[in-house]
Amino acid sequence: MPARAFDDLVRTITGDQPPRVWSLLVTVFGDLAQQEGARIGGPTLNRLTELMGIKPEATRVALHRLRKDGWIDSRRAGRSSTYGLTAWGRKQSAAASPRIYATGPLAESAWLVLTDPREGAERPGAVQVSPCIWIDVRRPDDDGVFSAEIAADTGLPDWMSAKVCDAGTCSQSQDVSIRCAELLKQLGSSPELSQPEAAALRVLTVHGWRRLALKAPALPDFVFPNGWHGPQCRSLVAELLAALPAPPLSDLERAAQADRAA
Amino acid sequence: MPARAFDDLVRTITGDQPPRVWSLLVTVFGDLAQQEGARIGGPTLNRLTELMGIKPEATRVALHRLRKDGWIDSRRAGRSSTYGLTAWGRKQSAAASPRIYATGPLAESAWLVLTDPREGAERPGAVQVSPCIWIDVRRPDDDGVFSAEIAADTGLPDWMSAKVCDAGTCSQSQDVSIRCAELLKQLGSSPELSQPEAAALRVLTVHGWRRLALKAPALPDFVFPNGWHGPQCRSLVAELLAALPAPPLSDLERAAQADRAA
Repeated sequence: MPARAFDDLVRTITGDQPPRVWSLLVTVFGDLAQQEGARIGGPTLNRLTELMGIKPEATRVALHRLRKDGWIDSRRAGRSSTYGLTAWGRKQSAAASPRIYATGPLAESAWLVLTDPREGAERPGAVQVSPCIWIDVRRPDDDGVFSAEIAADTGLPDWMSAKVCDAGTCSQSQDVSIRCAELLKQLGSSPELSQPEAAALRVLTVHGWRRLALKAPALPDFVFPNGWHGPQCRSLVAELLAALPAPPLSDLERAAQADRAA
Repeated sequence: MPARAFDDLVRTITGDQPPRVWSLLVTVFGDLAQQEGARIGGPTLNRLTELMGIKPEATRVALHRLRKDGWIDSRRAGRSSTYGLTAWGRKQSAAASPRIYATGPLAESAWLVLTDPREGAERPGAVQVSPCIWIDVRRPDDDGVFSAEIAADTGLPDWMSAKVCDAGTCSQSQDVSIRCAELLKQLGSSPELSQPEAAALRVLTVHGWRRLALKAPALPDFVFPNGWHGPQCRSLVAELLAALPAPPLSDLERAAQADRAA
């Protein structure tokens, strides 16, 4: 599609702030090349990032840093290189995927946990509401701890749900859901996208939601504040990803070459 | 029965510390003469308190104070007086009776309540575990408050149940249950009691348990510490009261006169 029209779609999903390149590339590999042995050619990567509004120099710097950080490795292939996740990078991506791609609630039940105020306590993965009040997705089995299941129809008071998800995160979730809904609308009335264009929008969609999905605790939606639009985001992201399916990498390589040639 | 043998029974239930007379008379009227119009003659009262190890002078002073405090009134009847609860005194007695005479748990369910730590909170009737953690017998319906039913099979951790009932109260409940069990055993092998003797032991049984029953919160037994022998007390007190039924006051008056004449 015409470059200007496509840039409008990109701006719809990213807003005016272009994403940080290092982090965006983590999403590219995690979304398009997470399976073992998957590799993306340098030219294809450049084409994708260019479509997302990133300059080739910025992509080069970010790829260098990702290699140094152990996320990806590179291999020479003729005149250019191919890039793929390292075993460690693949593990990180796989660990994050269930939260990013979940189409429903991340948990069905939550437990209120009270710990002895005379003792310091840490509960990894649990939300700390006050020094000895926690919300945990697991029923605790340690001694000296009280627990009660939080009924789904209870609704937490504001002062508790605000600790599950703060106002800033809620506001971001509203932003993401608005952008996703708008992109979905615009896609309906757009001329057909090339495979690289579709892949670029797909990655940007995942990326916009990824940070939020990983920041919010993996608790049932009913313990979140009303302002949290996570459920809407999940469902809109799922719709967008269905509309923008991940292409086989070999197709993407060919299409990126054809795209650049055009 | 012989005075010395009877005194042994009295000591079994009261221990070495004789009860305070004012408070004991409140139990006498509440237990034997709570119904409207019920009156006890001065000589009968003296006989009962004498059997409990109280001197006539102490009874006279306590009756005077109870009249001044509005618990009872007195009426001349020939050469002596009769005493009965005032409407106010009857109301106090009736309000306390369900807890004193309960033969089973005082409640079936309990709610954990969390109040906003930024706000001061008072919850009449609820046990305060920490500044914003409460245990209440009612499900709260006020805004800004979290609640979860406490499952009967959960078992509270020590630091919580200790706030429901402290170690001193637990230890008193063990004392009461031991005394009641011992009295029950001794009654089984005792010669027959006169009506005033039975009434005196009955009142002393109620009295020993009354203070404890009113001090402990009206919550289900499963939120109490293991050291709380309330359930045992309730069942032993019920057994004793069945073995020592409250006599009709007219019978008691006649028997007390006969007793004194003997």
